[in-house]
Amino acid sequence: MTKLNVAMIGYQFMGRAHSNAWRQVRAFFDSPIHPVMKVVCGRSAEGAARAAERLGWEESSTAWREVVERDDIDVIDICTPGDLHAEIAIAAAEAGKVVFCEKPLANTVAQAESMLEAVRRAGVIHMLCHNYRRAPALALAKRMIDAGEIGEIRHFRGVYLQDWIVDPESPRVWRLERARSGSGALGDIASHSLDLARHLVGEISEVSGLLETFVEERPLEDGQGRGIVDVDDAAMAIIRFEGGAIGTIEGSRFCPGRKNHNRFEINGALGSLAWDLERMNELEVYVEAGPESGFRTILATDEAHPYVEAWWPPGHILGYEHTFTHTVYDLLRAIGAGVVPEPNFEDGVRNQRVLDAIERSSATRRWEKV
Amino acid sequence: MTKLNVAMIGYQFMGRAHSNAWRQVRAFFDSPIHPVMKVVCGRSAEGAARAAERLGWEESSTAWREVVERDDIDVIDICTPGDLHAEIAIAAAEAGKVVFCEKPLANTVAQAESMLEAVRRAGVIHMLCHNYRRAPALALAKRMIDAGEIGEIRHFRGVYLQDWIVDPESPRVWRLERARSGSGALGDIASHSLDLARHLVGEISEVSGLLETFVEERPLEDGQGRGIVDVDDAAMAIIRFEGGAIGTIEGSRFCPGRKNHNRFEINGALGSLAWDLERMNELEVYVEAGPESGFRTILATDEAHPYVEAWWPPGHILGYEHTFTHTVYDLLRAIGAGVVPEPNFEDGVRNQRVLDAIERSSATRRWEKV
Amino acid sequence: MTKLNVAMIGYQFMGRAHSNAWRQVRAFFDSPIHPVMKVVCGRSAEGAARAAERLGWEESSTAWREVVERDDIDVIDICTPGDLHAEIAIAAAEAGKVVFCEKPLANTVAQAESMLEAVRRAGVIHMLCHNYRRAPALALAKRMIDAGEIGEIRHFRGVYLQDWIVDPESPRVWRLERARSGSGALGDIASHSLDLARHLVGEISEVSGLLETFVEERPLEDGQGRGIVDVDDAAMAIIRFEGGAIGTIEGSRFCPGRKNHNRFEINGALGSLAWDLERMNELEVYVEAGPESGFRTILATDEAHPYVEAWWPPGHILGYEHTFTHTVYDLLRAIGAGVVPEPNFEDGVRNQRVLDAIERSSATRRWEKV
Amino acid sequence: MTKLNVAMIGYQFMGRAHSNAWRQVRAFFDSPIHPVMKVVCGRSAEGAARAAERLGWEESSTAWREVVERDDIDVIDICTPGDLHAEIAIAAAEAGKVVFCEKPLANTVAQAESMLEAVRRAGVIHMLCHNYRRAPALALAKRMIDAGEIGEIRHFRGVYLQDWIVDPESPRVWRLERARSGSGALGDIASHSLDLARHLVGEISEVSGLLETFVEERPLEDGQGRGIVDVDDAAMAIIRFEGGAIGTIEGSRFCPGRKNHNRFEINGALGSLAWDLERMNELEVYVEAGPESGFRTILATDEAHPYVEAWWPPGHILGYEHTFTHTVYDLLRAIGAGVVPEPNFEDGVRNQRVLDAIERSSATRRWEKV
Repeated sequence: MTKLNVAMIGYQFMGRAHSNAWRQVRAFFDSPIHPVMKVVCGRSAEGAARAAERLGWEESSTAWREVVERDDIDVIDICTPGDLHAEIAIAAAEAGKVVFCEKPLANTVAQAESMLEAVRRAGVIHMLCHNYRRAPALALAKRMIDAGEIGEIRHFRGVYLQDWIVDPESPRVWRLERARSGSGALGDIASHSLDLARHLVGEISEVSGLLETFVEERPLEDGQGRGIVDVDDAAMAIIRFEGGAIGTIEGSRFCPGRKNHNRFEINGALGSLAWDLERMNELEVYVEAGPESGFRTILATDEAHPYVEAWWPPGHILGYEHTFTHTVYDLLRAIGAGVVPEPNFEDGVRNQRVLDAIERSSATRRWEKV
Repeated sequence: MTKLNVAMIGYQFMGRAHSNAWRQVRAFFDSPIHPVMKVVCGRSAEGAARAAERLGWEESSTAWREVVERDDIDVIDICTPGDLHAEIAIAAAEAGKVVFCEKPLANTVAQAESMLEAVRRAGVIHMLCHNYRRAPALALAKRMIDAGEIGEIRHFRGVYLQDWIVDPESPRVWRLERARSGSGALGDIASHSLDLARHLVGEISEVSGLLETFVEERPLEDGQGRGIVDVDDAAMAIIRFEGGAIGTIEGSRFCPGRKNHNRFEINGALGSLAWDLERMNELEVYVEAGPESGFRTILATDEAHPYVEAWWPPGHILGYEHTFTHTVYDLLRAIGAGVVPEPNFEDGVRNQRVLDAIERSSATRRWEKV
Repeated sequence: MTKLNVAMIGYQFMGRAHSNAWRQVRAFFDSPIHPVMKVVCGRSAEGAARAAERLGWEESSTAWREVVERDDIDVIDICTPGDLHAEIAIAAAEAGKVVFCEKPLANTVAQAESMLEAVRRAGVIHMLCHNYRRAPALALAKRMIDAGEIGEIRHFRGVYLQDWIVDPESPRVWRLERARSGSGALGDIASHSLDLARHLVGEISEVSGLLETFVEERPLEDGQGRGIVDVDDAAMAIIRFEGGAIGTIEGSRFCPGRKNHNRFEINGALGSLAWDLERMNELEVYVEAGPESGFRTILATDEAHPYVEAWWPPGHILGYEHTFTHTVYDLLRAIGAGVVPEPNFEDGVRNQRVLDAIERSSATRRWEKV
Repeated sequence: MTKLNVAMIGYQFMGRAHSNAWRQVRAFFDSPIHPVMKVVCGRSAEGAARAAERLGWEESSTAWREVVERDDIDVIDICTPGDLHAEIAIAAAEAGKVVFCEKPLANTVAQAESMLEAVRRAGVIHMLCHNYRRAPALALAKRMIDAGEIGEIRHFRGVYLQDWIVDPESPRVWRLERARSGSGALGDIASHSLDLARHLVGEISEVSGLLETFVEERPLEDGQGRGIVDVDDAAMAIIRFEGGAIGTIEGSRFCPGRKNHNRFEINGALGSLAWDLERMNELEVYVEAGPESGFRTILATDEAHPYVEAWWPPGHILGYEHTFTHTVYDLLRAIGAGVVPEPNFEDGVRNQRVLDAIERSSATRRWEKV
């Protein structure tokens, strides 16, 4: 079996989730590639060393550029904040590496486009990590839609709601700084709804959006004064798809009680589907008519469901982190087959264009083309 | 006890629901007024006579104008399609009657304003029947909001989804004709979400809306050819409230499996509330923080809940029709007290202005002031 | 149309529910019989008069025996506590009246048997009011079972849980006195689970039961000292059905948060059904196999569902009291057809025998035949 | 940090789950012990070798006795069918190893007692793997009960329902052979309900049980004829706890649509708790009274919830397998502290005695003491 050496840049929340996927994938899936967890990179030598020990990487480094250029590294996995994605991804592409990048691809359309151009020019395999596409229940939804089970789609209704900054005295973390994060709820969470909308329904043609910041100033993390919040606390849009469907997308971090409420409902001419990340093993489905019809709950833990055969018997649910394990598995399969998997940097560019249109629309106060 | 004679115009779906309320109110509530179900009016003599016998009215008539002008009639209850509301209500006001009108108040802002002007000029008591405000769980939500339990409101998210015309071969009934109904999903169902938004959150200042007709032609009801659908199949909008909250409103009749899915979620600075008409006895509430917090389901069937003391012991749920019974009870109390209850024709005008702004916005493709 | 005069004995909770059914049935259903609400009887002249005025009865009386013997009375509706059922029912049968009796039929097997003997000897129509059989979702469950949709039944699992006496200082009301009520949770609520078990699954052959009293003494209602609780606070049993199924039945008034949690689940060889009174318009159904199977929720508000055509459009739920309206409707149809409807006094006897076997088993500490 | 070498016997379903726990524990938890996955044992050399490669064990072996006696092995993890537990555990104890044994501890009370005696005599640390105790929501339930939040417990109601043998033509696997499995649904799944009952409510004093086999003969796995099913398809009991509570326990594999429905409800004097394995991250709680009370759903993914701090931010759910990771973590902590953790072999003996009493009761048809 081919072994490939992986280097991961960044080891915070996403780094932990990606490491878990690399560590676990071969214990459950028959991968054509054997990934070796070679190096983890970070700004702090101590932190990177600790992450290596903890997360299972052979080495650690503070010099991502050197790592990217090492001959023995085959795959670069980017888990940094969004403002570093472009620089790293372009360097990795130029070094001929497989590039696996956490979402959002970049903080601007221009960055995203330059990344896509770089991977295309270099001819390397690239993948965007939009992990929720690989929850079994979500993949089942995709399979049912593609099989025509709900017919032509009319409506998409997606929200991603959290409550972690509803307290106006919670600190101004990096996710609330535009320079680091690019945007607020829009890029962080509404972007997930958007990616699922594109994945399940198709391309979006135009939007009318609204961004809102409820708390414009917060305590700095170091306790030394207060800082400006220059990103959106909530983002919402009404949207039109190229295929004729219409919909809404919303992200907010001001919804008490909603911890990770990434939910959508899709209505087609023949049926409906709904899904909620907090119950990510379940798919709600309405596909038949008549007096015995109703929304049913499919517990997507059967071996006939996508990805599940590798895991446990029916009724034993999977956790959040395995959406990443499945993504890494599909990346490894794509590498084995020499193809570019989905979603990839082109999806990243398209997603970024929709986010950009929502921002523009919020400013111009009219519909904007994507 | 004062007896007042009631005349009802129209005896279809809404007429049946109103009749039930008049018939039942005194068996459960201590009303200061004893309403007498005097006359039911309709276009067909036979139909009106049958309705009288069935629904419990003493007389029937095909001449609503005569009835409106009868000295022995005290209250006019309007249950016709929307295109007749203005004419009847204005006549009733001019005849000095209490005017009780099913929603939407009218098909246009101008009609609604003329109705409001008429009842004000005449000094009569007027009420708009937006029945869902009086579901006990809904009234409990209002009570909790007014008591500050969820804090300053940030988000309103309302949908009213049905599926009764998803089949493109279902007939072109009067609700799909603009001349009769004024609009489609917008006025028929999104208007309920809108009224609840105004009731619970406050006045709406501006909107960006979208109306869509998926099936533009349908078989005529008489089977003689096909007719144009000139109303919206689906209506949606992003909205701003005067108080700073933002939200979405949507109505659609193209959502398979959704029979009467009138649902909203409200997020405040301190908590959240959600409600669904199909489980109208339940209120979902999140109001505390900490490790033992979570959305709870209040089964609003306790004697401490609004309107419930009149009914059954805890856990015995109420049906749809009693939202009307409660509305009629509050109308009778208002008559007894000589005051104008809520919602009234002013709410009707305000609701109509929001609907109008959504329609305008859908045409201009930009935000419109209400 | 034939008019029949009805007299109702007892006007508390059940009397209010029965009155509502008599008052409403003809407004919604095409009944072959026109019931006239003639007399309501009670121990207090004042109370009975007030009940008559409020609930819609023409007259009131304190002399139930006289009423039962009046020539102009056709139907006797018994809504008293259980200790009076036998005497009234037997008198009514001997007077040749239709006898409609609230459950449980009696407080002992012997009483129940004498009542059955009396109605049979007199040849009168008799019906036991086990209202939940007539919730549309429940009637749909029965229809699906009879059609073989879930196959041969293996399991019945029924609970009826409430919490109204969980506070040990709540008063010793009549339902906690054996002399009045016959038993506690067993006859009051577990009897509902039992009746549904017999209705849906079939006759019960043997039981192993357990009765428990958690709080053995409570304040008297008049505040003058404390009284003994000589009935069960909770009752449970494992049961065998004649057809081979096995199951559990439980009733308890010591379950905080459970207001009226009358729930069952049935598992057959081909599928499963579940129902909960607090969401009485919904039936949970699992009937297909394969990767897209799951429990679905049928909202039993479609015109194709039992009793629903008489009511509102799909998605408009019915309340508790209409289980009685449907029962009265079926009684009137049976009277029109000259047949004895179900459930009737024979069911009352059979139910009582099961309750008796549970009590015996709790004493003997072994399985007892019914 | 102390390193300890682990040997695991058996590598099927439970072996995979235990391996995952050993592999993952240090990536998430600060364990005082560093477990080294040294050897996996099985009957087939090839299978064991493949398991070693796949699941992350350094070596494989077909000679469990030799492995148990190796000086470099510190911990024996037993994942075989129940008929081998006693022999292996006793050998491991005599060799002075830490013994970690998958549930049920043994197939008979006598075996279980001999195992307990062996570990006590040897003075070794022992633990029984009843993994569900360590789901965060379950551990939260335990914490709330211990804190008195639901008061004195009155009722336990536990079911564990599956549907994998509802088809009478599904094969007679080892779990349906008494010689291998000891019992059917009773020991396999009802034992989970029972262990949770003891964990959360306390010791059980007596039972009235019922075992039933619906399909008494099935095709052999090799297709060569049919074999007898000599275990129970379904098991149920009513139970009394020493502390005064009463309850029901049930396990069945004949419940279509129920995949892994391990659910319980507990009612105390002050509140209620409910949990369902298929939504294992959620705890349903009722703890307050009054008009705004209701069952709430705690999503047990907050850092304040047991075990969760090691994982992901709020709202990111955990999967089935981490109940084992938490169990192994607690075992390692106990080893570090030199104490015997819970549940241990004494719990295994007590659980087995309850199972035995249920079997006896099913035969004698009367209540049996544990």
